[in-house]
Amino acid sequence: MTQAFGRVVVCGVGLIGGSFALGLKAAGMVREVVGIGRTRAALERAQALGVIDAISTDWAEALQGAELVLLAMPVGQMDTVMAAMAPHLKPGVLVTDAGSTKRDVVEVVYQRLREHLEYTVPAHPIAGAEKSGAEAARADLYRQRKVVLTPLAENKPDAIARVREAWAACGGDLAEMSPQEHDRVFAAVSHLPHLLAFGLVHEIAERANAEQLFNFAAGGFRDFTRIASSHPEMWRDICIANRHALLAELDTYLTELAWIRALLSKADGESLEKLFTDARDARDAWLAGRFNSEA
Amino acid sequence: MTQAFGRVVVCGVGLIGGSFALGLKAAGMVREVVGIGRTRAALERAQALGVIDAISTDWAEALQGAELVLLAMPVGQMDTVMAAMAPHLKPGVLVTDAGSTKRDVVEVVYQRLREHLEYTVPAHPIAGAEKSGAEAARADLYRQRKVVLTPLAENKPDAIARVREAWAACGGDLAEMSPQEHDRVFAAVSHLPHLLAFGLVHEIAERANAEQLFNFAAGGFRDFTRIASSHPEMWRDICIANRHALLAELDTYLTELAWIRALLSKADGESLEKLFTDARDARDAWLAGRFNSEA
Repeated sequence: MTQAFGRVVVCGVGLIGGSFALGLKAAGMVREVVGIGRTRAALERAQALGVIDAISTDWAEALQGAELVLLAMPVGQMDTVMAAMAPHLKPGVLVTDAGSTKRDVVEVVYQRLREHLEYTVPAHPIAGAEKSGAEAARADLYRQRKVVLTPLAENKPDAIARVREAWAACGGDLAEMSPQEHDRVFAAVSHLPHLLAFGLVHEIAERANAEQLFNFAAGGFRDFTRIASSHPEMWRDICIANRHALLAELDTYLTELAWIRALLSKADGESLEKLFTDARDARDAWLAGRFNSEA
Repeated sequence: MTQAFGRVVVCGVGLIGGSFALGLKAAGMVREVVGIGRTRAALERAQALGVIDAISTDWAEALQGAELVLLAMPVGQMDTVMAAMAPHLKPGVLVTDAGSTKRDVVEVVYQRLREHLEYTVPAHPIAGAEKSGAEAARADLYRQRKVVLTPLAENKPDAIARVREAWAACGGDLAEMSPQEHDRVFAAVSHLPHLLAFGLVHEIAERANAEQLFNFAAGGFRDFTRIASSHPEMWRDICIANRHALLAELDTYLTELAWIRALLSKADGESLEKLFTDARDARDAWLAGRFNSEA
């Protein structure tokens, strides 16, 4: 039988932090959620919506009696926030985060929370939407979504188990990886597609005939670019934090595009059709849950 | 009061041709739809589904008493099909098509239907789905979708008016452009995104750790790559037919990516955030129907 958390502190009560709060509440896994963050107005909206129960602007106060802290700000703020939080963290208080990159977060943990490594279990819930803010938060955002933990060698087994319980209470499907592996995988399947979508929309919006182009853009364009409506600051931080893995992915993709460009140039329809067929088959197999590299 | 068509011939009874047939039927705008195509089994499925009323394998027979022909095969078959159809076309029979590219279709029209230019009105309905085949056809596929006509200088005004009536009966929102303008616009907002999505999925599927990568791919990846489940032969033909405009678009995009790569390399978060913000704002304005190049 898992035991509920008493006080949980959520730093950054947007879509991600707010959905964690609502998920724990829906599961009866928390007594009180305290929100803390940069913007008073955002905290007040979250409180008015019932996403958090109380507002704090002070780590010493927020951490009074807290059992669990979720850091759910853009990853660029991890250093500042951990530095502010660290002096007030009592031994045993669990810390997890929802950062979309993990190498950089783990580095900051080793710098700022070095007295607290036993209890700090980095995490990345693979859920999101093009909407941001506590208004978009939902108790079921993490239901059947992967939540990747990148535990530290120093973590107490009990701390990992309790952090798993919190994410599992929100409905998450837990996995574990090293921070390095995490960042390489998500550079490929998440960070690069975001960069490509932002780039395409930006490039079209800058043109003299942008209005005509958008006027004839249809459902394919809408879905392809959905992720270009994502949170700019969050994605700035992800791209900067994971830029080495992301540059490697971008270069691999540029090589693919150079090859496709050559096929187009010489009007090699047969090779293009094979490429398209292989891509369609792989995607359809993935959606059907039966992709197999050996196939 | 628009008058219904008697017999309509649809060549290629897949999603596009089938939805045209169903749309005309739902509007009471056709007495009989005859399907013609390469694959007997596909025609029989379409007939069993009530998408078409009769099957023909012979143009002379199909065109007996026909008033309107829709050519809805992949554009690579236009030449063969028009050559087979031409000897049996009586003056006054209207011809339209649903090809996703227009310069190449218009060229074939001038070669193969030069006795029939008054009655041949090229068209491109901007609708589709990742599903293909008559099974996916729907009477409302074209409802509130743009249908771009690229009329020929030789078209009779009456022929244009009647072809407009047919597409409007299916719910289409009609527009007119030159074939060149059409092909440039759709290279940017449709053909390039398809190529990019096919390329990304193909590149990932080829890797040794593809299974792991797909396992952690989420909703953003799914939407970004939706169009990579499109019909490979159809997209081969589009890419080959429109390769000059598409190469120009690809090169413009590669320039954008080279710029983004430079920003990433030097960790220029400020410029990346501005790019992301501009892209998000442009996309959100487009979706809200208020994109304005001057803004």
